Amino acid sequence: SKGEAAAIETELLKDYRFGQQQLVEIWGQACAVAIAKAYPLSSLGKKQPTVLVICGPEQNGSIGLVCARHLRMFEYEPTIYLPKRSTQSLHQDFTVQCEKMDIPFLSYLPTEVQLINDAYNLLIDAMLGPEADCSNIKEPFSGILVTLKQVNIPIVSVDVPSGWDAEEPSQSGINPDVLISLTAPKKCAKSFSGKHFLAGRFLPYDIQKKYDLNIPEYRGTDCIIEL
Amino acid sequence: SKGEAAAIETELLKDYRFGQQQLVEIWGQACAVAIAKAYPLSSLGKKQPTVLVICGPEQNGSIGLVCARHLRMFEYEPTIYLPKRSTQSLHQDFTVQCEKMDIPFLSYLPTEVQLINDAYNLLIDAMLGPEADCSNIKEPFSGILVTLKQVNIPIVSVDVPSGWDAEEPSQSGINPDVLISLTAPKKCAKSFSGKHFLAGRFLPYDIQKKYDLNIPEYRGTDCIIEL
Repeated sequence: SKGEAAAIETELLKDYRFGQQQLVEIWGQACAVAIAKAYPLSSLGKKQPTVLVICGPEQNGSIGLVCARHLRMFEYEPTIYLPKRSTQSLHQDFTVQCEKMDIPFLSYLPTEVQLINDAYNLLIDAMLGPEADCSNIKEPFSGILVTLKQVNIPIVSVDVPSGWDAEEPSQSGINPDVLISLTAPKKCAKSFSGKHFLAGRFLPYDIQKKYDLNIPEYRGTDCIIEL
Repeated sequence: SKGEAAAIETELLKDYRFGQQQLVEIWGQACAVAIAKAYPLSSLGKKQPTVLVICGPEQNGSIGLVCARHLRMFEYEPTIYLPKRSTQSLHQDFTVQCEKMDIPFLSYLPTEVQLINDAYNLLIDAMLGPEADCSNIKEPFSGILVTLKQVNIPIVSVDVPSGWDAEEPSQSGINPDVLISLTAPKKCAKSFSGKHFLAGRFLPYDIQKKYDLNIPEYRGTDCIIEL
């Protein structure tokens, strides 16, 4: 649940002295590995391995930025769209890392969905995370969600599909093809029928036990599992 | 060279706004993956998959701590030896992460090498990095190097074998079986004849070009290459 996810993160940061930068780096890299597994370069239909990564202003967006950077290292061609600049210095650092690596940024998202369908193979939704209040989504995010419901290229959502409540599956929200749950799946993932990955292989065993998480076993040195 | 390595790191931290925590996490995780590749669990001779990780008080040691944590996630049984507590808060955080994950710490290193040979399958040397002045190694490190020269279990060195000058191969120093170069091999690795990995797949292409690094191509989503 939302509350448990927040409690685990607090415990990791306070008691285990993990850093947010460190966690975001682990999650973002694992997301890129999951995307490369679900959509290998050789499987992409378009001439260029283009990917549009939509990054929100909170932690979910930071993870999207790290993911875009690793996708670039994996020879994909990510383009980033930041609907709203973040005030968090960590988010800004991750943004600079992408800018300095020559990853292009869109200044606005085309409302004509055909333009998005034509330009990109995939869309990564790292816009809103589990903390977002889905009953009160404001601009610019609400407008983007309207666009995301119309595109017909595959959508990969990070942790929680944007606009969904973390606690329950959405009837009328966006419909991602792939969901990458971070650390442990949120309740809303229960009835998700697309490809589902778990990412974030660093959770101490004590925390897994304490919260009764029942995490399946990762194989070898893999940083993701397909559920 | 040593100077170039330092200049690249400064550029990553200042211009690219990478964080030290982020880089250490990437490097440490990649080291664990390289160790698991060189010495898979199934190849270990002893009943328990024990590994001794010796971590110095500087960045090399922080990387060793992260490496030990990931080895634990990969089902190895690391034990850590910190010859000297670090004053860096980042190093202390990485130490707490290991302590809270129930990774045992040795309070001293046995001088009787047979005890080390019997107890561990492998020894990871994350003691001294490229910045160390190898002409003037003080206790406790000099004593540990004497021990390391005598053990007959395989040694894996992180970035630069402890006691070696980063610029030239050592005649009389320790003799690791595996070397994991970080970001780019240092000059001393030129004549290294053991298994040699490169770890740290995040170096922006512009930096690779600027310093004429000629990094070989990583495959797929691999975070290491065997050279």
